[in-house]
Amino acid sequence: MTLNPTPLLLDNLYWITLLAVIVSSASGVLKAGFKQYDLFGVIIIAIATGLGGGSLRDMLLDRDTFWIRDQVFFMASLASAIVIFIASRLVVVPPRFFLVADAAGLATFGVAGTLVSLMVGAPPLIASFMGVITGTMGGVFRDLLCNEPPVVFLSPLYATVSWVGSLFFIGFLHFGLDITLAAVIAGLGIFISRLLAIYYNITLPKFRFKS
Amino acid sequence: MTLNPTPLLLDNLYWITLLAVIVSSASGVLKAGFKQYDLFGVIIIAIATGLGGGSLRDMLLDRDTFWIRDQVFFMASLASAIVIFIASRLVVVPPRFFLVADAAGLATFGVAGTLVSLMVGAPPLIASFMGVITGTMGGVFRDLLCNEPPVVFLSPLYATVSWVGSLFFIGFLHFGLDITLAAVIAGLGIFISRLLAIYYNITLPKFRFKS
Amino acid sequence: MTLNPTPLLLDNLYWITLLAVIVSSASGVLKAGFKQYDLFGVIIIAIATGLGGGSLRDMLLDRDTFWIRDQVFFMASLASAIVIFIASRLVVVPPRFFLVADAAGLATFGVAGTLVSLMVGAPPLIASFMGVITGTMGGVFRDLLCNEPPVVFLSPLYATVSWVGSLFFIGFLHFGLDITLAAVIAGLGIFISRLLAIYYNITLPKFRFKS
Repeated sequence: MTLNPTPLLLDNLYWITLLAVIVSSASGVLKAGFKQYDLFGVIIIAIATGLGGGSLRDMLLDRDTFWIRDQVFFMASLASAIVIFIASRLVVVPPRFFLVADAAGLATFGVAGTLVSLMVGAPPLIASFMGVITGTMGGVFRDLLCNEPPVVFLSPLYATVSWVGSLFFIGFLHFGLDITLAAVIAGLGIFISRLLAIYYNITLPKFRFKS
Repeated sequence: MTLNPTPLLLDNLYWITLLAVIVSSASGVLKAGFKQYDLFGVIIIAIATGLGGGSLRDMLLDRDTFWIRDQVFFMASLASAIVIFIASRLVVVPPRFFLVADAAGLATFGVAGTLVSLMVGAPPLIASFMGVITGTMGGVFRDLLCNEPPVVFLSPLYATVSWVGSLFFIGFLHFGLDITLAAVIAGLGIFISRLLAIYYNITLPKFRFKS
Repeated sequence: MTLNPTPLLLDNLYWITLLAVIVSSASGVLKAGFKQYDLFGVIIIAIATGLGGGSLRDMLLDRDTFWIRDQVFFMASLASAIVIFIASRLVVVPPRFFLVADAAGLATFGVAGTLVSLMVGAPPLIASFMGVITGTMGGVFRDLLCNEPPVVFLSPLYATVSWVGSLFFIGFLHFGLDITLAAVIAGLGIFISRLLAIYYNITLPKFRFKS
């Protein structure tokens, strides 16, 4: 199933990506805020988080990196970082806001990554995993730059909800659901499942060697 | 020396790459097994190890990423991860199996990386180093994601045997050896030298500053 | 403002890049020298530092990776690594030499990254940030491979001088300054500001949450 890049699809992709950049960049600032970085360090981590996952997707799919030609994504990332930076000096930001921003990035970039992969003709299984890569790798870069173990491996159902959400999204499109509706349902599904998994601390069984 | 992508060469490349993906993914699972990751975390590390080195090669050479169009490599990585996951719950897997799988990945991806680089017209020295990158970087991603120092820098003769093996492989092809034979000899050479280096703990002199 | 790749521009780019590769590779060796790596480990870290930032730039801009076709950059990186390796066994190398080589890499790759981005038609803001990526990411790869926190986030004014220097460079070109002169002024500006920031320990205010 190859998606045609209709104006409606491209429009959806544009807004989903913009939202994804804003919330992911915010998660970068909120994570870096617990480290002793200066303003520019924080901005660079915000940009790496907000643009990193989508950049890797575009390099793997050999298409133009999404933020090079159109400055709006870069400026959205920068603006998000600066707004959170200022806000967090004026009001107390509870630590759980980081998890909310991070879950929103996982959901929005997951949908955007799946969508683009289907658009360039990747098979469904590959497209669903590209959703996982796009959704999680921004956070992996953020955590590596912050010198912390990536949240993707430690946190309940992180990659799991991303992958299941991407598969549902592809299923919805396959059965002819409107693309905007499919994106909203899949995205909200990932976002809410992730928050529920954190709240109720739902985990998969841990991997362990027999010994 | 640019290699023409003859059917024989592409056939060799296909099988070497498939083997490389299977053994590298297995090494990812065997490493992650000593961490407390859940099933999906383990799968993602297996995929990053099995597909990561070749993906970086393809992005650097600006060619199609090898696992995007043809799902077989992704499915092989997934299957390898799940089989090892189940097997390691049924029987005791000795830790040295990790080193064997890792050495097999170094050898097979080293040959595959050199082959592809020659095919796109890279000079011999560059092609040999691209073999090192392809052979070692999957393991580097694995180790970074597991939050451990990359085995490439700590383990006896790791990059060294990979580089020497790639150079021999190019030499064999230069002197007109059959490509399948050259690949088998170079690959086995890397694999066996690496295992011997581990067994006898052969190391190069460490780098040290005069002080 | 898209720069045309005139022979003069390409000539400038060639020499700036060659210098950038040599000094960055040297910084990789000088950092790895404090770890217990063997000769090949040191060489790989030198190459990752010397070629990594520019490789990421070229992959993001979807152009040919600069060191694949023309072996001179790879050989310069290798030669720089071996010369520093031998020199540091013959004479005492003061630790501050690392900071000087690192600052020189930041300056030269910053200018080279900005130049190439303008050449492929990236908007000025994007081009200036691509200068930061090109200038800093080689060092980030070096530090990640050495299992240390990236110097970019801990050290005074690191990304800041890189970004300001790139913006000045674009400004100079915009106002019609000769390209060689603009590159020399911007590069020396980054290099000297960085060294002054280290010497006088000038820092931006640290980011901190209100609590």
